[in-house]
Amino acid sequence: MERHFDSELQNLKTRLVEMADRVEEMIKYAVEGLKERNEEFLQRVFETEKKVNLFQVENDDIALKLIALHQPTASDLRLLVTAVKISSDLERIGDQAVNISERAMGLLQEPPLKPLIDIPRMAEIVQGMVKDAITAFVQGDSTLAREVCKRDDMVDDLNNQIFRELLTYMMEDTKNVPRALKLLLVGRHLERIADHATNIGEEVYYIVEGKDIRHHIQNEQCAT
Amino acid sequence: MERHFDSELQNLKTRLVEMADRVEEMIKYAVEGLKERNEEFLQRVFETEKKVNLFQVENDDIALKLIALHQPTASDLRLLVTAVKISSDLERIGDQAVNISERAMGLLQEPPLKPLIDIPRMAEIVQGMVKDAITAFVQGDSTLAREVCKRDDMVDDLNNQIFRELLTYMMEDTKNVPRALKLLLVGRHLERIADHATNIGEEVYYIVEGKDIRHHIQNEQCAT
Repeated sequence: MERHFDSELQNLKTRLVEMADRVEEMIKYAVEGLKERNEEFLQRVFETEKKVNLFQVENDDIALKLIALHQPTASDLRLLVTAVKISSDLERIGDQAVNISERAMGLLQEPPLKPLIDIPRMAEIVQGMVKDAITAFVQGDSTLAREVCKRDDMVDDLNNQIFRELLTYMMEDTKNVPRALKLLLVGRHLERIADHATNIGEEVYYIVEGKDIRHHIQNEQCAT
Repeated sequence: MERHFDSELQNLKTRLVEMADRVEEMIKYAVEGLKERNEEFLQRVFETEKKVNLFQVENDDIALKLIALHQPTASDLRLLVTAVKISSDLERIGDQAVNISERAMGLLQEPPLKPLIDIPRMAEIVQGMVKDAITAFVQGDSTLAREVCKRDDMVDDLNNQIFRELLTYMMEDTKNVPRALKLLLVGRHLERIADHATNIGEEVYYIVEGKDIRHHIQNEQCAT
C-alpha cells in the first residue's frame, strides 16, 4: 500500500513536470511567433492549451483519489493539495500564453513597430522560472523555490523598462499607440506568468520550510 | 464525529464568506478612492490586505486538518480542496485590489483625465461576481455559478469599451498617454478579478454538476 502510494505520488510529480514542459513550450512559441512573425508558431499555442487543460482535470482526479484511498500523513496531504494548486497555476500560465498569442495575431496584421529584444528576454526568464519552480517542488528544494521568487523582481524591472520605452513611442507619434499598447499588454501577460511561478515558489517554500511564511515572503523577499 | 465535521465545514464556509466580504470591500475602496480622489480609502485597501492574507493561511490549515482527521467522503474531500482553491483565488483578488490602489495613488498626483463612469460600473459588477461566486459555493448552487461565469463576458465588453475610449484620449493628445495608461491598467486589474470570480464559478459548477466540465464551460459558455 505504502509503496503503491509512493509510486502514484511519483507519477503525479512526473505529470506536473510534463505539464510544465507543455506550458513552457506555449510561452516559447507565443513569443517566438510574435518575434519571427510566424503564425504557425502562434497556432501551436492554441493547440497545446487543450492538452494543458486536460492535464489539470486529470491531475485533480489523481490527487483526490490518492487522498481518499491512502489517508496520507499530514505532510503528504499538504504535498498533494499543493500539487492541485500548482496544477491550477500551470493551467493559468497556459491561459496567459494564449493571451500573448492572441495579441501577437493582431500585431502580425500590421508592420512591426520596433525590433523586439526585451520581450523575448523576459519570456526566457519566465520560462526558466516555471521550470525551476516545478523542479523545486519535485525535489523539495526550498533554496531554489526562494530563488525563483527573487527572480520576480527582475521580471518586474524588465517590464517597467519595456513600459517606459513603449510609452516613449506613444508620446512621439500617436500612430504608434495601438501597436505599442498591444506590446505593452504582452509584457503584462509575461509578468502575470512570473507571478504564477512565484506563487508556486512560495507554496513550495511553505511546504518545505514550515508555516505562515508565504505572505512574509511575498511582502519582504519577493516584493514586487 | 460526523456532527463535528459538519460544524467545522460550516465554519470554513462562513470564513470564506467573511473573507469574500473583506475582498469586496477592498475592490470598493480602491475604485471609490480613485473616483473620489480619497487617499484614506486607498490606504484602507492596504490595511485590509493583511487580514485577507491571514484568512488564506488559516483556511488552508483548517481544510487540511479536516481532511487529515475525518477522512471525508470523496465528495466532501473535493469540496474541501475546492475551498482551498477558492481561498487562493480570493487572496489573488485582494492582490489585484492592491494593484488598483497603487495605480490610483499615482493618478491622485495628477489632475483627473476625465470623469470616471465605466470603471466604477465595472467595479460594481465584479464585486457582485465575487459575492455570488461564494454564495454559489456555500449553497451548492450550480445555476448561480454558471450565471457568474456568464457575467465575465459583460466585464470583458465593458473593459474593451474603456480601452477604446482611453485609446481615443491617447491618440488625441500625447500628454494624455500616461494617465490614460494607468486607467487602462485599472480596467485590466478589474478584468483579472472577474477572471478569478469566474474560476471560482467554474470550480463550483464542477463540484456540483460532475466531472470534466470546467474547460468545456471555459471554452464555450464562458468564452472571453
